[in-house]
Amino acid sequence: MENKIKIGVVGYGNLGRGVLKAIKEHNDMQLEAVFTRREEVFLEDGSKAIHISKINQYKNKIDVMILCGGSATDLPQQGPNVAKMFNTVDSFDTHAKIPEYFDSMDKVSKEAGTLSIISVGWDPGLFSLNRLMGQAILPQGKDYTFWGTGVSQGHSDAIRRIDGVKDAKQYTVPRENALEKVRNGENPELKDRKKHLRVCYVVIEEGADKLRIENEIKTMPNYFSDYDTEVNFISEGELKKNHSGMPHGGFVIRTAITGDGNKEKMEFSLSLDSNPEFTSSVLVAYARAIAKMHKEGRTGACTVFDIPMAYLSPKTGEELRKELL
Amino acid sequence: MENKIKIGVVGYGNLGRGVLKAIKEHNDMQLEAVFTRREEVFLEDGSKAIHISKINQYKNKIDVMILCGGSATDLPQQGPNVAKMFNTVDSFDTHAKIPEYFDSMDKVSKEAGTLSIISVGWDPGLFSLNRLMGQAILPQGKDYTFWGTGVSQGHSDAIRRIDGVKDAKQYTVPRENALEKVRNGENPELKDRKKHLRVCYVVIEEGADKLRIENEIKTMPNYFSDYDTEVNFISEGELKKNHSGMPHGGFVIRTAITGDGNKEKMEFSLSLDSNPEFTSSVLVAYARAIAKMHKEGRTGACTVFDIPMAYLSPKTGEELRKELL
Repeated sequence: MENKIKIGVVGYGNLGRGVLKAIKEHNDMQLEAVFTRREEVFLEDGSKAIHISKINQYKNKIDVMILCGGSATDLPQQGPNVAKMFNTVDSFDTHAKIPEYFDSMDKVSKEAGTLSIISVGWDPGLFSLNRLMGQAILPQGKDYTFWGTGVSQGHSDAIRRIDGVKDAKQYTVPRENALEKVRNGENPELKDRKKHLRVCYVVIEEGADKLRIENEIKTMPNYFSDYDTEVNFISEGELKKNHSGMPHGGFVIRTAITGDGNKEKMEFSLSLDSNPEFTSSVLVAYARAIAKMHKEGRTGACTVFDIPMAYLSPKTGEELRKELL
Repeated sequence: MENKIKIGVVGYGNLGRGVLKAIKEHNDMQLEAVFTRREEVFLEDGSKAIHISKINQYKNKIDVMILCGGSATDLPQQGPNVAKMFNTVDSFDTHAKIPEYFDSMDKVSKEAGTLSIISVGWDPGLFSLNRLMGQAILPQGKDYTFWGTGVSQGHSDAIRRIDGVKDAKQYTVPRENALEKVRNGENPELKDRKKHLRVCYVVIEEGADKLRIENEIKTMPNYFSDYDTEVNFISEGELKKNHSGMPHGGFVIRTAITGDGNKEKMEFSLSLDSNPEFTSSVLVAYARAIAKMHKEGRTGACTVFDIPMAYLSPKTGEELRKELL
């Protein structure tokens, strides 16, 4: 393929590294440059990342920038700044602030004639698509989203901030009996406590008080107090050996009755050994869609809801109808 | 809502009846008329269906026609004929003939300035979307489609044609051990026999030879000879009582390895008490999309691959981003 889609990556954390791996799996894409805020970052292949201050030198050399910063502090600034010059894909996931972020990206992108897609990944992202699909097809039904089994970075960090804790990992675990009730179409009312368990693996400083720490975890407002929480104290070696991965996943289930009492169930699920690598894979597929749609003249901000699935694929409409329909 | 989407339905079999039920669940749609080839068909509410010969009198009175005929003989004629005057949605499912049917619908619709979507439902349809999504996001993976547990009309009919058989129902059953291997990411090579079981419930004429009938079923080429087939002889009463529903469902599973050996799995599944009622629900949601897209000026033929998910929903982009993303 002569005209590969040229990808730029902003940020070289877990997500950025995942994007670099994912691009290699697509024959119609190539990595053009990685940008970071830090000086002297070397990539796995030994090449050097470029300082973010030089990003404007790459205007017209990059078709789509994949933004791999975090939603809390990076993207609200980075998104609009980069969208002034480039088409962008990001994984903005602060649900409550999506409307505000969308508006700011839409304004900048429309003025600049670029196209930006926000909140790509699996939730928000593929899970959102399945929620929409379920509600549109079975409007009288009910849907449930479960997360896990997977590591929550935010909850792990919260435990690490407790006095006497050296390191920690928190898993969000969907409750099997709640899943079963939902799948059976029982339409249960499920409070947080009934949907997910929180399982913690904690390494403590020598001599620290286990009872106090366990109590502080279990009563922590917002993070743990509304859940059934299991606390396991383990050694640093064990944590490294058994809990260094970043698995995640979850379920979107919609159930409904049609006609005279016929139960219908739609279910979408993910089971991921590497949350960042899968999320990166989603970002890269949507980067292809953005490159195509911008070529067709589309500008402004959009979300996964606005992209016809065909745009994710390198295949032509004819091939897709023949091979996949 | 003042401007409801006006729906016409062509054909009043299982699918057509399902569409009538589904439309009632959507506040922004209303049924305008049902057309049949038969004379004097009365609908459930007592009103009369309209003879298909009068369909041209409804031009400009109907936004979208949902075609509920079969793929073998009805749609190849009916599709292009109706698309000359109306936007259409159909569930054409003869996989091998999709490209040919698409071309004929595309030509007619473009000339007429109408918009037609073909092959809507769950397979082809939602399953196709999930196959595309899996391949675009995890290009180095492998995907599998399983069907069932569900009634196959074609296989049931084939048994009924055997001498001495009074009635029959055939279930396609996905094999649990094959599903498990696929879910584990073992990438098995699965021949038909290894993926699905065929379970038959047969009512015979008095005095008919069970052994001969069982043998004729199990050795029937194309339908049964390549599968493990289970034959159960039951009474007419039992068949009516336990096997009069039209359940179906299935699974689309994609597994892949990312990075250094991380297993990722995407799975979409349906479990349906009523195959025709669910399929109808999908057709109705896509009718909304077709009405919207035609209003925006789009014409010609398209498939589920070409429709942004937002068009399926009655909600605005703003509502969708706020509530579902």
